[in-house]
This record gives sequence, C-alpha cells and structure tokens, in this order.
Amino acid sequence: MEQQLIDWLVARLGGDPRLDVPNGDDAAVLRPPAGRRTVFCTDMLCEGVHFPRAPDYDPRAVGHKAIAVNLSDVAAMAGCPEAAVVSVSLPREGGQRIGEALLEGMLAIAERFEMPLVGGDTTSWDGPLAVNVAMLGSVAAGRVWRRDGCRVGDVVLVTGAVGGSLAGRHLAVEPRVDEARLIAEAFTVHGAIDISDGLALDLSRMMQASGCGAELDLAAVPIHADAVAASKRDPAGGTPLMRALGDGEDFELLISLAADDAERLLEAIAAGRLAGWPGTPLTAIGRVVAGHGLVAVAEDGRRSSLPPTGYQHAFT
Amino acid sequence: MEQQLIDWLVARLGGDPRLDVPNGDDAAVLRPPAGRRTVFCTDMLCEGVHFPRAPDYDPRAVGHKAIAVNLSDVAAMAGCPEAAVVSVSLPREGGQRIGEALLEGMLAIAERFEMPLVGGDTTSWDGPLAVNVAMLGSVAAGRVWRRDGCRVGDVVLVTGAVGGSLAGRHLAVEPRVDEARLIAEAFTVHGAIDISDGLALDLSRMMQASGCGAELDLAAVPIHADAVAASKRDPAGGTPLMRALGDGEDFELLISLAADDAERLLEAIAAGRLAGWPGTPLTAIGRVVAGHGLVAVAEDGRRSSLPPTGYQHAFT
Repeated sequence: MEQQLIDWLVARLGGDPRLDVPNGDDAAVLRPPAGRRTVFCTDMLCEGVHFPRAPDYDPRAVGHKAIAVNLSDVAAMAGCPEAAVVSVSLPREGGQRIGEALLEGMLAIAERFEMPLVGGDTTSWDGPLAVNVAMLGSVAAGRVWRRDGCRVGDVVLVTGAVGGSLAGRHLAVEPRVDEARLIAEAFTVHGAIDISDGLALDLSRMMQASGCGAELDLAAVPIHADAVAASKRDPAGGTPLMRALGDGEDFELLISLAADDAERLLEAIAAGRLAGWPGTPLTAIGRVVAGHGLVAVAEDGRRSSLPPTGYQHAFT
Repeated sequence: MEQQLIDWLVARLGGDPRLDVPNGDDAAVLRPPAGRRTVFCTDMLCEGVHFPRAPDYDPRAVGHKAIAVNLSDVAAMAGCPEAAVVSVSLPREGGQRIGEALLEGMLAIAERFEMPLVGGDTTSWDGPLAVNVAMLGSVAAGRVWRRDGCRVGDVVLVTGAVGGSLAGRHLAVEPRVDEARLIAEAFTVHGAIDISDGLALDLSRMMQASGCGAELDLAAVPIHADAVAASKRDPAGGTPLMRALGDGEDFELLISLAADDAERLLEAIAAGRLAGWPGTPLTAIGRVVAGHGLVAVAEDGRRSSLPPTGYQHAFT
C-alpha cells in the first residue's frame, strides 16, 4: 500500500533543522538561508530511457541517479543543495520493494550532500517506472553561474572525463557540487553548464546563449576509458573522441573563465592550493571566440566545423 | 524533437520579475520574498490513474490539473504560489502536439494565479503520459497552516462540495488559493489539509497528526451534485453521502478553527464582509474531540464509528 511506503519513508527520514514543519504535511516548509537566491530545478528519469527496463535495473542505482542529476544542475548554477521532493510511479507488482530500494539509493547520496528529502508523491500504475526529483538550492546573490555569460577570450574547462557513459557509468553520476562551490568561492566564472546531452551539444548551447562561438582543441578533450572500451566493442558506434563529444549523460561541468583566471585555477589545483578539492581532473579544452558555432582544432592545427552532436529526445 | 518543444515553451513563457536568470538555464534562480518561509511540494499525474488513458484524455485538461493539485497543496499550507517546474514524459508519437496542449493548459491556470513556470524537463518514451509538477510557495513565518495543530473543541469546516469528482470534475480542479489567503489574513487556523483521497480519510489523517478525534455531522456534509448523479447511475457504488465521504479527488480544504473563530468566519462570509471572497461555500461539518478516530453523528443524533474511507494506491 502507498501509505505503508510513506510511513516507512517518514520514519526513515528523521528531521532537518531547515524544516519548519515535520515531514508528512501537504507540503514542506523551509527557512530559506538569509540573503541568498533560490535555485530550482527538476529532472525525470524514465524506465527504458534513462535506465534499463525491468528486470535489468537496480532501483537503488536509479534512486542515486535521480538525485545526482538534479545535484548536477544545482552545481552548474554554483548552488548549494538545500532540499528535494520526489515523485515515483511504481509498478503494482513489487512496488513496495522497488520503492524502498529506490529511496535508499536517494537517501544515501542525499545524506552525503547534506540535502534532506522533504516530501513526495507515490502512485502505483501499470506503466513503467518513472521517477521525478525537484530540487532547491541556494546561491549568494550575484554569484550565480549562468550559461549566457561567456566572453570572447575565455578559456573553457571541463571536469572529469567524458564519453562512453551509457556502458553503465551514467547511473553512478558523481555530481560536481563540491568542485563548483570551491571554484565559485575563489574565482569568477563567466559561464557554466552541465553536460547531460553531449559535450559538443551542451558547449554549443552555452555558446549560443552567450552569443559567441568556441574553438575546441580535440587533443585536449579528456576521453573516458569507458569511451575507449565502447569503441573497441563497437567500432561502428564511433571513435573514442566522437563518443566523448556526443555520447552525453556525463554530468560533468563545462565552465568558462577569463584566460588568466583559468590559468590561476589550474595552477591552484595542480599545486594543491584549492583546499578540499576532491581530486577531480579539470582540463582546459578550448576558447570562446567571436562568431557562432563550434570549430574543432586538430593536434596539427587543422580547423574544421564541429557539429553539435549529442542526445536529443525524438518525438513527432 | 525535444528542443523544438523547449524552444516553443521558452518563447511562450516570457519573463517574470521574480526570476534572476532567464528561462532556459540549468535551473531557475528566484529571489525569495523577504521574511517568508518557503513552501515546497510535488505531485505526479499518471495516465490511467489520475486522468483517462489515450485517446480519451484532453492534454490541456491534464496540464490544468497538474498545476491545480499543486496549487491546492500550497493553499493547504496557507501559501502564496511563487513558481513551478514541470516534467513530462511524452509518447514518441504525437508528443509535440500533446506537449504543447499540456503546457497551454498549465500556462492558463498558472497565469490566473500569477505563478510563473520557470523550468522543466521533457522525455519521450514508449510508456504512458506522466506529468510532474513541483511548486514553490511562500508564507509568512509563523503563519503556516499545518495538519497537526487541531485542538479539542475546534470546529471543522470544508470548502465547496465533495463526492462524485471522478465523473469528470476531478480534471477541472479549482484550487482554493484565494480562499486560504483570505482566511489566513483574518483568522487563526489550527489545522488544515486538502482533500485528495477522500473527506473521511483526509480528515482522519489530520486528526491522527493532531492526536485528536473528530465528530462528523453527516447531515451537514456538502454533497456535490456529481455524487448524487453518480449514485443514480450506479447505485451499487454507494449512496451520495458515501461518495462524498470516500470518493476523493475533491481538492477542497478541510480547516479547523476555535469554535468562536469558526462562527465569526462563517458570519463574515455570509455578510459579505470578507472582501474578495470568491463565493465558494464554506460549511461547518463537525468538531474536534478528545480521543482518536472519526465518529459519524446522524441527523437524529445517533452516533457510530466512521471508517476512514478513501482512495489508496495499491501495490504489493
């Protein structure tokens, strides 16, 4: 029964000092941190699209991902996660078990980022599993990272490595919340976006929003080992570089800073001077230029137009 | 294509003075109103559960309901709606048309309550239509309505009329946002809940949270004409009163006030002294008593235990 799952969850949640009203009311009531803006986002995960179809998905991993992709959106605004609400449509058969495992996966990552789950909604139906998370974050006024602020001359950096995520890593998303916070505290970032649909596509979106273009140094793109392995298994699916540019579901951050700031940031990380940096690679992969669209720069200096490859949901 | 729907929506949305960052970034950024608490809730509507299966649903009506049920939750906390984010999983076939109609339905009611849609997520899949809305509201500190504050001696009031909503009215939800605001401005409300699963079930939930019981005057329950019509069509489905108590999907407010406050409130409405009151009926239906559970009081004074009937999602 739905009530059984809700009772289990309310007991499992405990309280949070940010909550004005205990869990279980019509809505959560929070004390917003003084002098900060509210970041607000949502992401829905659908069986067979964002995770495998039953019985091939692990509900705990789905729960982790549902929270993690929202944390990634909050991080891309330089926000501090504050609270989340969760909606799940569960199959009638096995719904209690799936719901509990899903929520355990959510709670594990939510606790790691000190972000309470404060409410939700459960439905049982004959359809596939769908999980929605909506998240609140906070950011100091004037310190929010936007995607439309990149400036000509900026250097573009990417966290981690990209490509091949669909082989399985896409479920174990590591949101770059701490990285964003540490960078935002010490540096001025002009533009930021998280890579959900593909490095090339999301970079082109950030450039379009900023009214600029970008040159991408192909040899600098940090290609994930998963992309190399995927190309070995399925050469027809593209080279490791093509996969790094277009696979998506990386949930790494693309950020754009003035060239000298980018240099200082990379030096600070290399020298261990950015206290608390989690060891995540940060790599300069290109520059913001006048114009529009993306230009690929090969190792030998040859330049070519780069299509904004990436994943787009198709319906007609 | 997903991007086409997003572009259409971003163009359709325009701006809002509460938005710090234009629509289309990784997350919305809002200026929270000073000195107020944040209300945060979510509700997911699933095809075949909360609205009919294709092709029997009107996507515009589904969009209306998805926003309205969240507005009802915000109203049940005495909140002022501030912003919403929307997730939709659309069928691959016809997704663009369905998505546009759905969002038109959302925008119409969102504009009526001056609450911007500030972000969202779209997916296309092979599953049924699922629509999630998460909503932010604000409420003055210390003025929030909770479900656990009812006191022995309170009178319980209900807005509107209940029962028979599943014949169709459940899609045309009229959230009681203005009613809640007007009452909250002038009266102290001890407890409040919105009726989503059934008057008896939601009343019993409010009493359980408050550690009290309630007596319900059966003759006072405002039975909706839809419940009378439904009983005429299908007598085996219960009497109009049984439907009023257990059908659910009414999205009316149950509120609990000290007896003299309740009397003053009803007098103010009857005399037209609650400026701006939309004409919604408000009816005293019972009292909060010591103990627990619900007692039905018939017109002739006979008392009997009242089961907390209502809709519960079933899974095993």
